[in-house]
Amino acid sequence: MSQREIRTIGIVAKPHKAEAREVLRQLIPWLKARDRTILLDQDTAALAGMPEAGVAKADLPARADFLIVLGGDGTLLSVARLVGGRDVPILGVNLGGLGFLTEITLEELFPLLGDILGGELRLSRRMMLQVYVHRQGERVAEYTVLNDAVINKGAMSRIVELETYLDGEYVTTYRADGLILSTPTGSTAYCLSAGGPIVHPTLEALVLIPICPHTLTNRPAVLPGGAKVEVVQGSEGEDVFLTLDGQVGFPLRYRDVVEVRRAEQRIALVASPKKSYYQVLRTKLKWGER
Amino acid sequence: MSQREIRTIGIVAKPHKAEAREVLRQLIPWLKARDRTILLDQDTAALAGMPEAGVAKADLPARADFLIVLGGDGTLLSVARLVGGRDVPILGVNLGGLGFLTEITLEELFPLLGDILGGELRLSRRMMLQVYVHRQGERVAEYTVLNDAVINKGAMSRIVELETYLDGEYVTTYRADGLILSTPTGSTAYCLSAGGPIVHPTLEALVLIPICPHTLTNRPAVLPGGAKVEVVQGSEGEDVFLTLDGQVGFPLRYRDVVEVRRAEQRIALVASPKKSYYQVLRTKLKWGER
Amino acid sequence: MSQREIRTIGIVAKPHKAEAREVLRQLIPWLKARDRTILLDQDTAALAGMPEAGVAKADLPARADFLIVLGGDGTLLSVARLVGGRDVPILGVNLGGLGFLTEITLEELFPLLGDILGGELRLSRRMMLQVYVHRQGERVAEYTVLNDAVINKGAMSRIVELETYLDGEYVTTYRADGLILSTPTGSTAYCLSAGGPIVHPTLEALVLIPICPHTLTNRPAVLPGGAKVEVVQGSEGEDVFLTLDGQVGFPLRYRDVVEVRRAEQRIALVASPKKSYYQVLRTKLKWGER
Amino acid sequence: MSQREIRTIGIVAKPHKAEAREVLRQLIPWLKARDRTILLDQDTAALAGMPEAGVAKADLPARADFLIVLGGDGTLLSVARLVGGRDVPILGVNLGGLGFLTEITLEELFPLLGDILGGELRLSRRMMLQVYVHRQGERVAEYTVLNDAVINKGAMSRIVELETYLDGEYVTTYRADGLILSTPTGSTAYCLSAGGPIVHPTLEALVLIPICPHTLTNRPAVLPGGAKVEVVQGSEGEDVFLTLDGQVGFPLRYRDVVEVRRAEQRIALVASPKKSYYQVLRTKLKWGER
Repeated sequence: MSQREIRTIGIVAKPHKAEAREVLRQLIPWLKARDRTILLDQDTAALAGMPEAGVAKADLPARADFLIVLGGDGTLLSVARLVGGRDVPILGVNLGGLGFLTEITLEELFPLLGDILGGELRLSRRMMLQVYVHRQGERVAEYTVLNDAVINKGAMSRIVELETYLDGEYVTTYRADGLILSTPTGSTAYCLSAGGPIVHPTLEALVLIPICPHTLTNRPAVLPGGAKVEVVQGSEGEDVFLTLDGQVGFPLRYRDVVEVRRAEQRIALVASPKKSYYQVLRTKLKWGER
Repeated sequence: MSQREIRTIGIVAKPHKAEAREVLRQLIPWLKARDRTILLDQDTAALAGMPEAGVAKADLPARADFLIVLGGDGTLLSVARLVGGRDVPILGVNLGGLGFLTEITLEELFPLLGDILGGELRLSRRMMLQVYVHRQGERVAEYTVLNDAVINKGAMSRIVELETYLDGEYVTTYRADGLILSTPTGSTAYCLSAGGPIVHPTLEALVLIPICPHTLTNRPAVLPGGAKVEVVQGSEGEDVFLTLDGQVGFPLRYRDVVEVRRAEQRIALVASPKKSYYQVLRTKLKWGER
Repeated sequence: MSQREIRTIGIVAKPHKAEAREVLRQLIPWLKARDRTILLDQDTAALAGMPEAGVAKADLPARADFLIVLGGDGTLLSVARLVGGRDVPILGVNLGGLGFLTEITLEELFPLLGDILGGELRLSRRMMLQVYVHRQGERVAEYTVLNDAVINKGAMSRIVELETYLDGEYVTTYRADGLILSTPTGSTAYCLSAGGPIVHPTLEALVLIPICPHTLTNRPAVLPGGAKVEVVQGSEGEDVFLTLDGQVGFPLRYRDVVEVRRAEQRIALVASPKKSYYQVLRTKLKWGER
Repeated sequence: MSQREIRTIGIVAKPHKAEAREVLRQLIPWLKARDRTILLDQDTAALAGMPEAGVAKADLPARADFLIVLGGDGTLLSVARLVGGRDVPILGVNLGGLGFLTEITLEELFPLLGDILGGELRLSRRMMLQVYVHRQGERVAEYTVLNDAVINKGAMSRIVELETYLDGEYVTTYRADGLILSTPTGSTAYCLSAGGPIVHPTLEALVLIPICPHTLTNRPAVLPGGAKVEVVQGSEGEDVFLTLDGQVGFPLRYRDVVEVRRAEQRIALVASPKKSYYQVLRTKLKWGER
């Protein structure tokens, strides 16, 4: 895969993260010494003590050739949603741990950046989901997510009924606390807490997991990546919400339809040259070694 | 156990339930013919077409020797909370199915009532939970529940941290969607959806079930009935709620403490002479027969 | 897809199944009246009262253009293993119920056969797994399975250690009762009992499910269909077995390697024109209807 | 509780365990210097280089006032079965880790022994199970277990049918890989792998857990401690075994009945003065701290 030359680098740090300030202090001069143009979103610019250098976060993907995220999986998810269909690789650095998405550690950062600017770049292209909300025949909302779209009941509601269709065919009506519609990438996030399987990120699949289903035989399902899933909010008078990547929320009304399908674009994450997917799993899930 | 004579019978029907109206039309004359005084709560009186005969629902337990609930488990739970410490047996009739708590069917109702008025009464005495909310050292709420007290996050919150103590000793901090504190009776209700075990209703135990825990090794726990559990809401800035028997809600603030322990009183449910606990389980959970 | 003309039809019935005898009594004349040649395996010929007409079961796939299985999923699995790479469709009739693989009922059989002989044939092509056992560098056994290959410990062994590799890369060492390696088709068989997800039969995937793992965070995994999985039996002195489709067994020695990958051939199952995959799921798993 | 004076101390080490030899080298002179009589079972005597000092392992409980186990939970379980009804406390030292039963570490051993010989002894009395096998009306085997009795199928069998009764009343027929009948103490052993809850060791309860049940709604059950459970092996022609504490095996025939009830005797384990039950859970299950 041909990669455009990396001249302009955007940096997004987790807001108010002290460790990020320290990394910025090293990273900015290091990149400048290598003659790269640097763009910071406004919060990151403030953190770096260069408030005048900040640009709108939403503008970064269009203006940068490459993005560096300093934070955790949450920060990376928020950036991934902005990147949309653009082919801008994202390098996720985890400050203080190891993330499923931000798998580069601080120790790896500078040697890896050296390799990348020298032209060596290993990318993991991940499937994303396109999410639409239809209300009375109108499309009222649209999102792209890297991890998951979650439909769930409000805390005071008892149950939600979710009528579910696969490629137009009726599947079942989940009576549950909610339903997760996830990518393989999202299978190691919220899905795991709800009893889902680990789905390899290179698989083309759509994962459907009922949350606390009342019908005990309703189990997680793994569907073909090309599937279209439609879910009808079937509980009148209950509070039901759609949450995107655990960050953005949208209240669903009775008979609203949530449609989920594979997004046309993919996100390109910089992969660690040192750690495999299973090393990350072994560490994060404490599977132990041989 | 000696039972006081049954002279006054209170009846509570599920509001607006058409099947209940039909039962009332038969039940009221049947009881009058046997010289019993009948009390109806206001909604039930309206349903029976005798609005002038209604008394406040909350007054029924003090004024009746015996209560009949026409509806489902939800209606019975709402009556159980009113009964509190009074030794008034409850007969639960399920209209249109079989409940875990309302295990008497319409066909069984009149023969069973005949036996009961004749002095034959088989009761199942169930443990209840006393639930307190403490805020900055003050007790701000108090409830008695037959099934469960559930602490859970609002739909837009990502996680709640619940610091948990058993008899004053630190157990763990659950990072989860929520936590269920249940009686054995409640183990076949919401608990089952959250992956809990079936706990026999005669066991003296307190059941603790994390909902979608992030730590995958956090499992349901069954504690001694005499245990005192305290849970500290440890997530600042998140919406967290306490729900009682799935019916009453109370918003929890940061550092509020939910204390749960066995209630002194028990509820006395009329048991079916024909169906055992395991027959109900087999039917409700579709376990099949030999 | 072009289908060769159906002239010779092989029939395999579940041995000693009384219902099968009745079906054969109708089916054989029906097919003869339509000028088809009929082949029966020896057990089925005996059941039909035509012992002289039987051929070896293993020869059926080479000699027939089409196979009819009367029985249940077990009978169909045993036929599928014989078919191997040949493009002979299998029509599975379930006697006395509904199977995941034998989804045609007796009522549907004759109308469906009429359509099929008339040229209308809807097939569901299913992925199978090739399973090899390597011992000290030699290939000592080889199987093709439609559902699953299961490695499990003997009843008196305490645990088995299974060192697992994906495409040559170390994944983890499962310490468990065993490990299931399954196709999507097998996901609704033994996998479900072991806590696995439902994987849509058209997905190209390999499912890996530890049975009663000691490491509680070891979860079911869904891998790309093109993956090669190798499992090393790492427990010296323990009884460990490999079972193929729940029917054929092979004892594994210490350091034996079980290699599993997608088979080149696929099996072609006749799909019901009336029932979808989800209707079968709803019925078999008692998911209920709208 | 009054405790008899500790004059004679029995020691059982895990066979061939090198770390145990080192502990024995310190422990034996330490106890002799405090004027205690020491008894070693034959394997331990060999390990200590004093083969002439060994007595039969089975005789230790009758001849000692106190037992020290050096090894892991497995070694302690084997000793517990020998102790039977005798009131001889057991101190379990875990060599190289932390056990649920052997919760004393090497660092704690000598200070704790000093306290114990000085009269300070904190015991945790644990419920055990009495297990009988009945065959055609005869009792053919009898065991006492501290953790669990497991009925399971041989590796080549497909399923076992287990007809189950509670206090003489039919519960259900499990169609599964097997069934675990466990004490609360055993709930943190094999039970956890099979999806069971954590049951507090002071609860009087009997835990019943189907292993990979075919009926997905068959869930773990927690029964009153006084319950009698009877399980009929209902699979003709299948290999089925009973395993006691994962150590002793007994082949079950078709229609054999396994009866399980609380044993009259209890085992007295020396509790760590420093670690609570929940600290052990947090460490073993990696629950993390505050």
